Amino acid sequence: MMIPAIADLAVGNVDWQVFTAASLTTTFLGGATALATQRPAISLSLKQGFLLTTLSWVLLPLAAAVPFVYADLNMGIIDSIFESVSGMTTTGSTVIVGLDNLPPGILLWRSLLQWIGGIGIIVMAIAILPFLRVGGMQLFRTESSDRYEKALPRAHDMIKAITYVYTGLTVLCGLSYWAAGMSAFDALNHALATLPTGGYSTHDASFGFFEQPLIHWLGALFMIAGALPFTLYVAMLTGKRKALWRDSQVRLFLTFVAGSTVLLTVYLVAVRGFGAEEALRLSAFNVVSVITTTGFATTDYNAWGALAITIFFYLTFIGACAGSTTGGIKMLRIGVMMATLSVYIKRLVYPAGVFPRRFGGQDISSDITASVMVFTLAYTGTIAVTAMALSAFGHDFVTSLTAAATAVGNVGPGLGPIVGPAGNFAPLEPGAKLVLCVAMILGRLEIFTVLVLFVPVYWRQ
Amino acid sequence: MMIPAIADLAVGNVDWQVFTAASLTTTFLGGATALATQRPAISLSLKQGFLLTTLSWVLLPLAAAVPFVYADLNMGIIDSIFESVSGMTTTGSTVIVGLDNLPPGILLWRSLLQWIGGIGIIVMAIAILPFLRVGGMQLFRTESSDRYEKALPRAHDMIKAITYVYTGLTVLCGLSYWAAGMSAFDALNHALATLPTGGYSTHDASFGFFEQPLIHWLGALFMIAGALPFTLYVAMLTGKRKALWRDSQVRLFLTFVAGSTVLLTVYLVAVRGFGAEEALRLSAFNVVSVITTTGFATTDYNAWGALAITIFFYLTFIGACAGSTTGGIKMLRIGVMMATLSVYIKRLVYPAGVFPRRFGGQDISSDITASVMVFTLAYTGTIAVTAMALSAFGHDFVTSLTAAATAVGNVGPGLGPIVGPAGNFAPLEPGAKLVLCVAMILGRLEIFTVLVLFVPVYWRQ
Repeated sequence: MMIPAIADLAVGNVDWQVFTAASLTTTFLGGATALATQRPAISLSLKQGFLLTTLSWVLLPLAAAVPFVYADLNMGIIDSIFESVSGMTTTGSTVIVGLDNLPPGILLWRSLLQWIGGIGIIVMAIAILPFLRVGGMQLFRTESSDRYEKALPRAHDMIKAITYVYTGLTVLCGLSYWAAGMSAFDALNHALATLPTGGYSTHDASFGFFEQPLIHWLGALFMIAGALPFTLYVAMLTGKRKALWRDSQVRLFLTFVAGSTVLLTVYLVAVRGFGAEEALRLSAFNVVSVITTTGFATTDYNAWGALAITIFFYLTFIGACAGSTTGGIKMLRIGVMMATLSVYIKRLVYPAGVFPRRFGGQDISSDITASVMVFTLAYTGTIAVTAMALSAFGHDFVTSLTAAATAVGNVGPGLGPIVGPAGNFAPLEPGAKLVLCVAMILGRLEIFTVLVLFVPVYWRQ
Repeated sequence: MMIPAIADLAVGNVDWQVFTAASLTTTFLGGATALATQRPAISLSLKQGFLLTTLSWVLLPLAAAVPFVYADLNMGIIDSIFESVSGMTTTGSTVIVGLDNLPPGILLWRSLLQWIGGIGIIVMAIAILPFLRVGGMQLFRTESSDRYEKALPRAHDMIKAITYVYTGLTVLCGLSYWAAGMSAFDALNHALATLPTGGYSTHDASFGFFEQPLIHWLGALFMIAGALPFTLYVAMLTGKRKALWRDSQVRLFLTFVAGSTVLLTVYLVAVRGFGAEEALRLSAFNVVSVITTTGFATTDYNAWGALAITIFFYLTFIGACAGSTTGGIKMLRIGVMMATLSVYIKRLVYPAGVFPRRFGGQDISSDITASVMVFTLAYTGTIAVTAMALSAFGHDFVTSLTAAATAVGNVGPGLGPIVGPAGNFAPLEPGAKLVLCVAMILGRLEIFTVLVLFVPVYWRQ
């Protein structure tokens, strides 16, 4: 909070007082809690792991919402919480209209929330979720630990290495944006929101504000960089130069990106009469933005017609690589499901045949398959319940369904006038915003981390 | 085809010639094929089972489409095939406008297609699908054969008994409709379309044509009767009086019906200002109609507002009991998934705990769980691909998605002006209609029966 305070102080904006006060308050509260509960290190039980993870992702956004409440933005408490949750979960849906005229402090705070949220998610995906065995993520643990972590055996070292990579890529991204024509401040903010695949911009028009095609291509490139498994970057740095390219998840992800981009480009050229270069650039940027669950927009793809809308709706669910900052179902699980489906069909034809279920060069146990399937079921169910809650506020079918999908997937934009890429979440009712906050946190914590807290068996002795 | 011929002859309509000619043609073709391929009885291989089942459900509707082409309806070949496929798969979506003015022969033919399709599906679900092990239906085989078929050991006897029950219920349904105020002809046609949970009506307004509340309640009752596992009726007749009530699938189904009806009734009364009796009657009829995948309508529930539309969309997916004439995912699978989800969450909290996965009083093997999950995945995927194909014709998101869901689920109505309960499928492009025909047959054959034919491993020696 002291970083935006300094930024505001530098331009003479009074919000520096808000950030300083919020910083002192949260430091005091956090410090007091730490001191009051000081004791020798304990090892967490599984149950405590679930509770601690969920509480962190509820309490941190609440603390981070304080500056929004007190800054000169006319934001109520609910709006502030929404903006903060959307930021830290790297969703990127906003309730603020008029970003272009905001003081630098609050803009930087939004970008920082995304950047902090992003590294938090990677750490959680690598260090905590596999231990909780949520939704098949133990496969990721096996894959990363068996194959890459040997060079860096301890989780602590791995997390340190990943933080360096994450920071390094952010710096590289910011410098590239700046060199391509963004102002230094815009470049910093957009870099902070790109690597965590977050999507907050300093302009209402998002990336559409920038006219240089190069900026759009750089945006797509660095969104992809943020959507790859960060353990693989570390593997590359420790000598396995081809680790990224050889990874099945990465290949599947790039196949999805390329396939959807080509399909949309052909559609835009053939049916909607776009020029080839423009069609390719718009398709690539917006496909990458949605599949990496970032949510930057260069244009209102809502207006591209029925087929494009359906494709973007599907992309909202998919997500990119496990072990990155992206949300959604993720390539690891999609790969497991594709392998399961393929083996299932072969077994129908040859019941006695032996068909190994493999993804990423390893056999997939029935346990992993079941985890992945149950996760996908719970993921879809969470979207369905969220959509029903939103429709109870009177929102039409498309708005309810796509707002739910974009929140649970931590994407950002949905479809339709309110939640679409050209819309703004501000007009939603406070109740609907709270529903979306819960949905964003559920999605970010892979559903089950939160869900287990609500079953009686968790609280039984 | 001779039954509608007689009906048309009785009222002096020239279509009797069409039906007679079609009857002679198909009898000749079928008879010639039978004679030409006569040989001692063989036992089918698994592969032949898949091919034969799929071919039957493609060729029979094609033969049944002939009268639509030649009758005086101005229907093209595509429209005729659509009407026939929609009829035999018991979907009930129609491309004919002006049903009220049609001659009796063609109306009776439509109703008969549904009735024949209905019994065909039950036989397939009991005798063929468990043998093909598609989508967890082997659980149904185990359940039905172990617990109920002992009294009637041979499949042939079971099918005969079910045909009696199906016919008996149809007669009872028709007499009830007639007694409640329908004309004898309407009662016959609606009974023929109710038991197979089909949904073809003799009026454009469907059940909305009839003003007597009793007729609506009878409709709901007999749709439920057609949505229960027919093996259980046979079990009841052979002495197990409580077979229906004790069945977990039936209980789950009735819970879904009651829950959705109560929710919608409260909503209609509290939010939309309906009277209590009207709200309950409209909710019950339309919920039952959609969840049993029948598709009769008493009103345009499209106009009931956002929450109602979302609920009806979800009901489109659910379906009723396996072993009945309904489509959708079905209660058997939903029960298995609920049990799997519950055990999965408990295991997350207590990894070493032993939590049996049970549904319907029996343990569910991992094999069954996987089948059910893979089926649901493929089911959803089929809807997604179908919706994308429809959106390529330019149809909006809601029309594409709900038309796909209603076709694969063999329900009938979707949402929106064209495919909604007050719409008509006639304005769709010929290509879109063919896509929906494929979707209806895929849904009817539980996806995989058709899908296996398109994988290379099927055709390998």
